[in-house]
Amino acid sequence: MDRRKILLLIFDGLGDRPIPELGRQTPLQTARKEHLDWFAANGVNGLLDPIGPGIKPGSDTSHLALFGYDPRSVYTGRGPFEAAGVGIPVKRGDIAFRCNFATVDPSLRVIDRRAGRIREGTKELAAAIDGLVLDHGIRALFRAGTEHRGALVLRGGGLSPLVSDTDPHAEGVPVAAATATAHEGELTARVVNAFTKECYRILSNHSVNVQREKAGLPAANIVVLRGAGIVPEIPPITERFHLRAAGIAGVALIKGICRAVGMDVLDVPGATGGLDTDMVAKATAALEALKSFDLVAVNVKAPDVCGHDGLATEKVRTIERIDAMMATLKQGLGSDVVLAATADHSTPVMLKDHSGDPVPVVIFGEGVRVDDVQRFDELSAAKGGLGRILGRDLIPILIDLAGRSEKYGA
Amino acid sequence: MDRRKILLLIFDGLGDRPIPELGRQTPLQTARKEHLDWFAANGVNGLLDPIGPGIKPGSDTSHLALFGYDPRSVYTGRGPFEAAGVGIPVKRGDIAFRCNFATVDPSLRVIDRRAGRIREGTKELAAAIDGLVLDHGIRALFRAGTEHRGALVLRGGGLSPLVSDTDPHAEGVPVAAATATAHEGELTARVVNAFTKECYRILSNHSVNVQREKAGLPAANIVVLRGAGIVPEIPPITERFHLRAAGIAGVALIKGICRAVGMDVLDVPGATGGLDTDMVAKATAALEALKSFDLVAVNVKAPDVCGHDGLATEKVRTIERIDAMMATLKQGLGSDVVLAATADHSTPVMLKDHSGDPVPVVIFGEGVRVDDVQRFDELSAAKGGLGRILGRDLIPILIDLAGRSEKYGA
Repeated sequence: MDRRKILLLIFDGLGDRPIPELGRQTPLQTARKEHLDWFAANGVNGLLDPIGPGIKPGSDTSHLALFGYDPRSVYTGRGPFEAAGVGIPVKRGDIAFRCNFATVDPSLRVIDRRAGRIREGTKELAAAIDGLVLDHGIRALFRAGTEHRGALVLRGGGLSPLVSDTDPHAEGVPVAAATATAHEGELTARVVNAFTKECYRILSNHSVNVQREKAGLPAANIVVLRGAGIVPEIPPITERFHLRAAGIAGVALIKGICRAVGMDVLDVPGATGGLDTDMVAKATAALEALKSFDLVAVNVKAPDVCGHDGLATEKVRTIERIDAMMATLKQGLGSDVVLAATADHSTPVMLKDHSGDPVPVVIFGEGVRVDDVQRFDELSAAKGGLGRILGRDLIPILIDLAGRSEKYGA
Repeated sequence: MDRRKILLLIFDGLGDRPIPELGRQTPLQTARKEHLDWFAANGVNGLLDPIGPGIKPGSDTSHLALFGYDPRSVYTGRGPFEAAGVGIPVKRGDIAFRCNFATVDPSLRVIDRRAGRIREGTKELAAAIDGLVLDHGIRALFRAGTEHRGALVLRGGGLSPLVSDTDPHAEGVPVAAATATAHEGELTARVVNAFTKECYRILSNHSVNVQREKAGLPAANIVVLRGAGIVPEIPPITERFHLRAAGIAGVALIKGICRAVGMDVLDVPGATGGLDTDMVAKATAALEALKSFDLVAVNVKAPDVCGHDGLATEKVRTIERIDAMMATLKQGLGSDVVLAATADHSTPVMLKDHSGDPVPVVIFGEGVRVDDVQRFDELSAAKGGLGRILGRDLIPILIDLAGRSEKYGA
């Protein structure tokens, strides 16, 4: 049989638990979603544990698992993936941090940990500190992310992720001095502390901040760091699974995961990662990308946002918007594509947080054993022909259904 | 409870995918098979991933898994199991090859890679080259298999599997000289090349070939080698699981797997490994063997043959013949036997190849939790009381149901 393409749809935080406001149903059980249900009725369904039963996943670890990797061997913290997500071309051995622009007084006491959620001018501020050369020739690569967020990469010999945060995680206290959490981190702690000083020196006089102060806004006059992580060596998906792959996502972290596993990240105008994201545009972009890639992965962040904010009816409405996206896909999908739709984890509205509950998964395409499940939700899926699978098993299953698996043995 | 016996039925390549010719049903869903379904209705059912979800197994790796071994730690290539299958008593450290009798001209150019699919006289030809002593006192053990096939084992100090094939995998080109793929393979490559020369010297004048040439048939005047593998150390099933075990199989590879894990291989007249195999004879032999063994494993190759040949209705008919075998078993089975029926992998008719789809499994016997599954097929099994299990978990489950498990802990 011909080798086929794979479309992997990841609806972030889609899974849920019974919600009193919805008559003790989940948003998936409540929403009108004829197209999602059509895929369930014409595909094979099951439950999926993104990492393992009862394990509450982060979006980073679960996406690694859904891309076929064991996060226990390739996940070294969020920093490296955030850094890749904001566009720093990270290298194995780099040390990466998640960062905030913050506001400090001249004694470096933190007045606002998010610099008034600054939105404008962060690119210019980032450019002013990007490329700094610190102790021992260590280079600092810095990029701004959304709002006050950013990422820092330190590159050079002798670095280690064994350093504490400079982010004090509170206001009214000074920016913390980085300290080594083990002997190997001593050089890195010195470099980080030099970076803090240089940031304040450069940023406090920067024209963006001069303007902000004139306008009565808090200056983004320092960068605080957290979550040091070493950039892991991840065998690219092109080598590991022989797939030329593209990722479509609105949020930096997911873009970073896509880049880290060797996917091309496609920009889709209107794909914001928020509730206002243009899902149909994502579907159209995915169909287009399938012409040139073997695997196209799409992340839709909106259901997770509703879960974190505790918005039950908004989550139902988001699922109905996802259904419009599925209509576009149903219309445009070629017979040379195997489609899978699932979630990276549950974000139950009643928890306002991720949970370890399994999520539904449906696989649709030529050759799939069609079961008698009629609806795409957490309980219907449990009766499907896939049984209960692990996140990291999904890509091997899809590769086999797409006629791309290699025989183990003879 | 008394310790009971285990009967493990492995229907090779039985699993399938929807087939348009069968109204998008699988052969198992289509076949009339009241006895197989009786076992499903009176047993516990589930899905089984022979190696792992989505992994496309070979018959060798999957049988190792179904016999309770992790193929990743005991599988070293097909050669050693083929050699055991044709009856060479292999030892740990031997280097084994799969072989063909072939026809060459005096410059050793290959005219026919299969020597006209020679059927007669191969035992005599094999005897003429079996036991050759080559460089450094290395001994060559050779046995003929079915038709033009055979196996070679090299035994002695300093050998390595790191050598290339002498089989050129094409006609019109010379027999390849073996080369070392790493330094450790140099002695072995010299020995293999000496074996090639000796084969031609001895076989080209052999009376079987003189006769063949008179009859206008291509001479089986050389042996070409492929797939060097070192014989692994496999803890025998008698020690690993405390089971005296017997295997019944028509094909050499499966016989070899059985021998390699320490099973006695029983010869059943009429068990050919082909579509014409006498399945009822196998069932009768299995019932007889259960009197003297703790575990009897039976491989029925026919459904795999239909899958590879793309024969949908023939696969349905084969399943109906398997059902006659199940009738014999149902009739003759004592209450002291736990029976399991499953497949080593799917061989979908539409693929003409193995696939990574899970296969149904049913377990029947005293003490089994009987679920409400009524039919033995890929989708009914998914709703069974076993859920989805791994191939290597089956023997431990059966050992426990047979009252033979040991407590882990207190």
